[in-house]
Amino acid sequence: MSTQTPSIENVVKAYEIVKRYANRTPIHQSHSVNSILSTNLFLKCENFQKVGAFKFRGASNAVFSLSDEEAKFGVTTHSSGNHAAALALAASMRGIPSFIVMPENAPSIKKKAVEGYGAKITFCKPTQKEREDTQARVQKDTGAAFIHPYNNFNVICGQGTASLELLEEFPNLDIVIAPVGGGGLLSGTLTYVKGFNPNIKVYGAEPINADDAFRSLRDKTIYPSVSPKTIADGLLTSLCELTYEIISTKCDGILTVSESGIVDAMRLVWERMKIIIEPSSAVPIAAIMEHPQYFTGKRVGVIISGGNVDLDGLPFGKSNS
Amino acid sequence: MSTQTPSIENVVKAYEIVKRYANRTPIHQSHSVNSILSTNLFLKCENFQKVGAFKFRGASNAVFSLSDEEAKFGVTTHSSGNHAAALALAASMRGIPSFIVMPENAPSIKKKAVEGYGAKITFCKPTQKEREDTQARVQKDTGAAFIHPYNNFNVICGQGTASLELLEEFPNLDIVIAPVGGGGLLSGTLTYVKGFNPNIKVYGAEPINADDAFRSLRDKTIYPSVSPKTIADGLLTSLCELTYEIISTKCDGILTVSESGIVDAMRLVWERMKIIIEPSSAVPIAAIMEHPQYFTGKRVGVIISGGNVDLDGLPFGKSNS
Repeated sequence: MSTQTPSIENVVKAYEIVKRYANRTPIHQSHSVNSILSTNLFLKCENFQKVGAFKFRGASNAVFSLSDEEAKFGVTTHSSGNHAAALALAASMRGIPSFIVMPENAPSIKKKAVEGYGAKITFCKPTQKEREDTQARVQKDTGAAFIHPYNNFNVICGQGTASLELLEEFPNLDIVIAPVGGGGLLSGTLTYVKGFNPNIKVYGAEPINADDAFRSLRDKTIYPSVSPKTIADGLLTSLCELTYEIISTKCDGILTVSESGIVDAMRLVWERMKIIIEPSSAVPIAAIMEHPQYFTGKRVGVIISGGNVDLDGLPFGKSNS
Repeated sequence: MSTQTPSIENVVKAYEIVKRYANRTPIHQSHSVNSILSTNLFLKCENFQKVGAFKFRGASNAVFSLSDEEAKFGVTTHSSGNHAAALALAASMRGIPSFIVMPENAPSIKKKAVEGYGAKITFCKPTQKEREDTQARVQKDTGAAFIHPYNNFNVICGQGTASLELLEEFPNLDIVIAPVGGGGLLSGTLTYVKGFNPNIKVYGAEPINADDAFRSLRDKTIYPSVSPKTIADGLLTSLCELTYEIISTKCDGILTVSESGIVDAMRLVWERMKIIIEPSSAVPIAAIMEHPQYFTGKRVGVIISGGNVDLDGLPFGKSNS
């Protein structure tokens, strides 16, 4: 693992690994959504990725980039869910064990998925510090290689391969937008897209209730994410050194959105495009709805990060009648 | 319009029209669903069709097969929703008016869609007789050409084009299964599939709470559908002369399913495949779950009829907490 910031060439190299294990996901468009939002969207559907999220790209690149010596005691990480499932699946594909630290309030569908891939789970309180402390203990006990969910060169390069596939099919985009939690997806996106064409604008989208990335960039310091209350359960983490470095250097802006905007965006995509996207994936769509001045009339690539939704906890559904 | 039963050549001819106006929909597969159901499914995703349902195939074929003389006062129909939206859109594409009779209890998303395509709607009580009586009155008042939702040669030929595309990509299927309400989709499916290869089994799937097709075939008589209570709101109608003739001659069987099976099947597809399918589309998946003896180890094409779901009336979602 390197601590340097990655280049587009590193993403291209990662793709040689990722394409062997990950799905090439489809890009969906919708006349009715475009008409409602007065824009031209290209949704890169990582909800159709293995484990239902883009995280499998980074995890597979990280796991298969380890030497046999580095991999011999397996891999370990802490994650609110999608990275955990992705790492567990990538480890099982390589035939090595995985040890996962999860916050106890992670959605049950994500807990089940991680168990289903054969990982050993240790639960912890849902704070950044508890996650990191528990993770360090598990790592010490097992000797497994730590694959951080985003503060990891190979993970970031893997996440960038979604944009590689997007721009291969639609090179003439004006804008690419991705959600930002810890910043791994946004960093990979920036690395590939800005390397491909620096004139393409790249925005991050974040719940206003978890706006640590927005404030970190504004104040030029990394703020921790302190128990944020948002439906976007994949965006609870804060930037790290590596993702802050990439995002603060290359990103055209972080756009924050309301909770009601996230629900409206999720409903719009479910109703009009007939695809299941998780709340975190609705955050960039909400940004397009709530900040139309950046997007009107533009060709916008949207990284749909995943589709793992707990159907018993939807913000709509069963009426009270 | 002819009263003869259609042949595979009629479907091939219909496709020359349909392919100019309809989407070529993708075929989705899922390792996890296949593993859970011990079968090999190929979902023909008409939820991604224009108006969110296969109905646009039949409607576009019917509308564009009319002569200018036949089309001059527009078109009219009665429908619980998807055929209405499809006919309204096809009429607007041809530049003629449409007059739609809808049951007053149709899902609001379907009412809105029909209005959105510029149709003039007349509401009626939700019984077969009321629909037909109201429709006759509207037809008399307007002089519009009546396009029955399934008792129509060109509609049935259009619906068969979903199977044409399915078998073009995956010719080696053992089984094709489709839901059955009025029987237009199943008749079109039978016409194409049995013409393509009579060894491919074709089943219809129906809620046990609306099992008029099952009973009609068993007793060799067309039973009316009397206010059935099922979540599958697209399957409330009964067979007609033309669809009974085709289905009773060619179909390998009608499989009935429970209401809880429909909800379980819908949840399975939403959770594992990340696509929105409407309850009527979950009926064939429920049939595979509840009648595994027909499907274990087979290659099964499933016509996913549509994705128009009222998100405020889901059978899961908001918890009571």
